[in-house]
Amino acid sequence: MQIPTNHIYLATILLKRRQNLAKLINFPVILWSGSRSSRNFPANTFPFRCSSHFLYFAGLPIENAAICLEGEKLTLFMDNPPPSNLLWHGEIPTGDRLAEIIGADAAFPMSELKFYATNAATISVQNPITKITQSEVLNRDIFPANKAEEIDLELTKAIIFLRLSHDDAALTEIKQAVAVTMEAHKAGMAATTNAKFEANIRAAMENIIISDNMTCAYPSIVTVHGEVLHNEEYFHPVQKGDLLLADVGAETSLGWASDVTRTWPVSGKFSSTQKDIYDVVLAAHDHCISQIKPGVEYLDIHLLAAKVIAEGLVDLGILKGKVEDLVEMDAHALFFPHGIGHLLGLDVHDMEDLGDLAGYEIGRERSNRFGLGFLRLNRPLIPGMLVTIEPGFYQVPAILNNQEMRGKYQNIVNWEKLEKFSDVRGIRIEDDVLVTTNGAEVLTQELPTNTDGIENLM
Amino acid sequence: MQIPTNHIYLATILLKRRQNLAKLINFPVILWSGSRSSRNFPANTFPFRCSSHFLYFAGLPIENAAICLEGEKLTLFMDNPPPSNLLWHGEIPTGDRLAEIIGADAAFPMSELKFYATNAATISVQNPITKITQSEVLNRDIFPANKAEEIDLELTKAIIFLRLSHDDAALTEIKQAVAVTMEAHKAGMAATTNAKFEANIRAAMENIIISDNMTCAYPSIVTVHGEVLHNEEYFHPVQKGDLLLADVGAETSLGWASDVTRTWPVSGKFSSTQKDIYDVVLAAHDHCISQIKPGVEYLDIHLLAAKVIAEGLVDLGILKGKVEDLVEMDAHALFFPHGIGHLLGLDVHDMEDLGDLAGYEIGRERSNRFGLGFLRLNRPLIPGMLVTIEPGFYQVPAILNNQEMRGKYQNIVNWEKLEKFSDVRGIRIEDDVLVTTNGAEVLTQELPTNTDGIENLM
Repeated sequence: MQIPTNHIYLATILLKRRQNLAKLINFPVILWSGSRSSRNFPANTFPFRCSSHFLYFAGLPIENAAICLEGEKLTLFMDNPPPSNLLWHGEIPTGDRLAEIIGADAAFPMSELKFYATNAATISVQNPITKITQSEVLNRDIFPANKAEEIDLELTKAIIFLRLSHDDAALTEIKQAVAVTMEAHKAGMAATTNAKFEANIRAAMENIIISDNMTCAYPSIVTVHGEVLHNEEYFHPVQKGDLLLADVGAETSLGWASDVTRTWPVSGKFSSTQKDIYDVVLAAHDHCISQIKPGVEYLDIHLLAAKVIAEGLVDLGILKGKVEDLVEMDAHALFFPHGIGHLLGLDVHDMEDLGDLAGYEIGRERSNRFGLGFLRLNRPLIPGMLVTIEPGFYQVPAILNNQEMRGKYQNIVNWEKLEKFSDVRGIRIEDDVLVTTNGAEVLTQELPTNTDGIENLM
Repeated sequence: MQIPTNHIYLATILLKRRQNLAKLINFPVILWSGSRSSRNFPANTFPFRCSSHFLYFAGLPIENAAICLEGEKLTLFMDNPPPSNLLWHGEIPTGDRLAEIIGADAAFPMSELKFYATNAATISVQNPITKITQSEVLNRDIFPANKAEEIDLELTKAIIFLRLSHDDAALTEIKQAVAVTMEAHKAGMAATTNAKFEANIRAAMENIIISDNMTCAYPSIVTVHGEVLHNEEYFHPVQKGDLLLADVGAETSLGWASDVTRTWPVSGKFSSTQKDIYDVVLAAHDHCISQIKPGVEYLDIHLLAAKVIAEGLVDLGILKGKVEDLVEMDAHALFFPHGIGHLLGLDVHDMEDLGDLAGYEIGRERSNRFGLGFLRLNRPLIPGMLVTIEPGFYQVPAILNNQEMRGKYQNIVNWEKLEKFSDVRGIRIEDDVLVTTNGAEVLTQELPTNTDGIENLM
C-alpha cells in the first residue's frame, strides 16, 4: 500500500470527521474494512475494495482491518502479516505504523476487537465473509446496510449526514479522479476513428486510468448500443454511422470516484439527425446545471430535464402536444427513462449500499411513475454535495416496441418522424457538479460537451 | 454475453467431455456457475467470473446458473431475467436458446433444480452466496472444494483426471490467450524506455488485453521490485538501472488462461551483472523445457532448475561448493525460493481451488524442505498437460537478511561477491509448455527469452 505523502494532513482531516460524528451520536462505532473476494480460486482474488464507510474514517484501504471510533478517539485493529508474507507480498506497514499515519491512538490485533464491542454500532459490509465476523464480534445479528435498525440505523443516518457534504480533502481526491477521467475520455475520442471494436476504445480509455495508478470506479460502459443503459459488453464492431457512448470514471487509490459520460460519432462527425437529438440532450444538461444551487430540490432538476427534453422533441416533431402535459404523462421517459443523476463520492452512486436512506430525504419514497421511479436522489441540494447531471436520449426496443407503451403513447409520438432518427440509439452527457455556497462548480467542465468541441478532439 | 460463432463445435466438445466423465463416475452431478461479488454496493460488482468446473462442462459463462450432468445428458438451470432487465442490460439469450447452444436437453428455472438433487455430487464454488445455495439445494453440508468428501471427492478426482489433459477446444482457446499475452509483453517492452512509473508499463500491457476483449487471468505483476513475488503495486518509479519484471497473462472470454513472465532492463540494455544472472536463469529455463515429455516427473524438472541455477551461481562465484551438495542443502532456494511452475488451463494455477488434489499425485504431499515446499505440481507429465516453466533469481531481503539463513549459509554464499549483483533484485522467465505425445510444445516461443531478443523489442 502506498502511503500518502501528506499523511499529517490526512490525520487532521480524519480527526475532524470523528469530531463531526461525535456531535451526532454518543455510542462507540466499529467499522470493518472488508476482505478480498476470491475469483476462481482462493489465491486468485479480485482487487481489494475497502468499505467506503471505513475509508471515510480510516483514510487508507487497509485489508482485513477494523477501526473503533469513540468520541474523538480512533483505535485500529489488524493483524500484522506472518513473516512468510514478506516473500510473496513484500514489506507491509505494521499496525503501529499505520495507526501513526491515520492518527489512531493505538493498534491492536483483531482478537482484541471483541473487548470494544459492547453497545457498538456498525454498518454491514459487502463482503459476506467479513459480515460473519461482524456478527461474531458484536454477538448479534447484523442486518444488511440498507435495513439497519436501532443504533446501527442511528449511525447510518449520522454518516449520511456527514458524507452528503464533502470536505476539502475529499474534493482534492475527487478532482484528481476527475482530471484523469477527462484525459481518458479524450483518449477514447482520439482512438475512435481507427477502432474496429468497442473494446479498442475501452482499452484506450482505461489505459489512461491504469497508467495513472487508479482503478475504474465502476464497470466501464463503452458501446455503440448506448440504448442498453448498463451495457458491459465490448465486442460489437464500431461502424461509421454509429454513436459511441462512453460512461467511464476513475477512482483514486484512496477510493474517491468520478463519473463521466460523453457520446461521440464514430466517424468523427455527427450526422444532422444525431446533432439534432444531441443538442436536445445538451440543452437539458445545460439548463439543469444552471439551476443548481443550495436549497433547490434535485427532483425539480430532474423535472426540468424532462421538460427541456420534451420541448426539444416537440420542436423536432417527435413528440406532439403541450410540454407540461407530456411531462405529466411521462412521455419524455419513453426516451429518457432514468433519473437525472445521483450522489457521487467514495462510491460512484454514493452510499447506495444504504439503499435510499442516503439518496432520499427522510419521509420520501421512490415514485412508481415511469418517469420518476429510477430517480436515485430526491433531496434539497446543500453546499458540498456532489451530484451527477446526466440527461440522455435512448431508443430502447423494450420500451418503444412494448405494446402497452405503444398503445398509451400512440398519438403522442410521431412514429414516422422518429424513424428518421434511427441512427441515434443512445446519447448521454454526464458531468460531475459540486454544489457551492451560492451556486455550482462543474468539476468536469474542461471536457467539452458541445458537438464542435467533441469533433475537435477526434 | 457473446455467443461463439462455432457453437456447434462447442456442443460437440461438451458432449465429449460428458462422455469422458461418465466413464469415471455413475452418479449425477450438479455444478453451479456462481454469481457476482459486490464491490462497494450491490449494483457495483466485480466482473462475473464463472466457476471453472462449470465452464469446463457448460462452455459459456452463464451467471447464476447450474447444470446437471447425468451420463451424456446435460440439463441447464437458470432464471430468465425479468423484463426490467432489458432496459439496463439489454437482451440476454433465454435459457432455451443457451441450452440449444451448449447442447443441453432442456433449460429449466432454478426452482426446478431441487428435483435433480438426489444423490448428486458437486464442487463448492468460490462465491459465498452461491455456496449457501449449494447446501440448500443438495440439503447437506458442502465442504470447501479442497476438502471434498465421499461422492464430491470422487467427482473431484474424476474432473481432475479430465482437466489434467487438455482437448483441442481448450488448446485453441489457450493459444488465443497466449497470442494476446505475447503482444502485451511486447507492448510493455516498447513502452518502458519512456515510462516513469510501473503503472505506465502495466497500462501499456493491459491495454492490449482489454483491446482484444479479454481479461487478465490474474492480477498483473509489473514491477521493479521483482523480489516481491506477488507484487501487486504499481506506484514505484522506474529508473535506468532497474530490471522490470512483468508477469501478465490474458484470459479469453470463455475463461482459458495464459501466464507469461519476462524481465527486461528499463534502460533498454542489460548491465553485465544483470546479463550474467539472467543467463543463469535462462539456462535453467532452457534445460527444463528440453527435458519435458510424457513420463518425466515434474519434481525432477524442478530439481533440474535448482541444479542449473546452483551451477550458474557457482560459476559466477556467488555460491561455493559442489552443485549436488548445494541443491541438497537448498542453497539454490536462497535465490530461487518458489517452484518451477504449475498447471495451467481454465485457472492460471489450474484447479488450485481443489488444493493439492490436482497438483499432487495421490499419496504425495508437499515437502517441508525450504527449496521444495512451494512446488505446486508434483506429478508425472502426461500428453495434453499444460505447465508453466518459470525459473527465477531474486534477492529477497526477508531471506538474505534472515539471521537463521545467514548463519546456515554463511560459508556457502560469497556475500561480498553477491553485492556486486545488487542491480538484480528479481528475474523470472516464464513460458507455457504443452506436453505432447513425444515431447513438448512451447506455446509462448514467439516471445523472445534471450537478452538480445528482448533488447531488440525495446
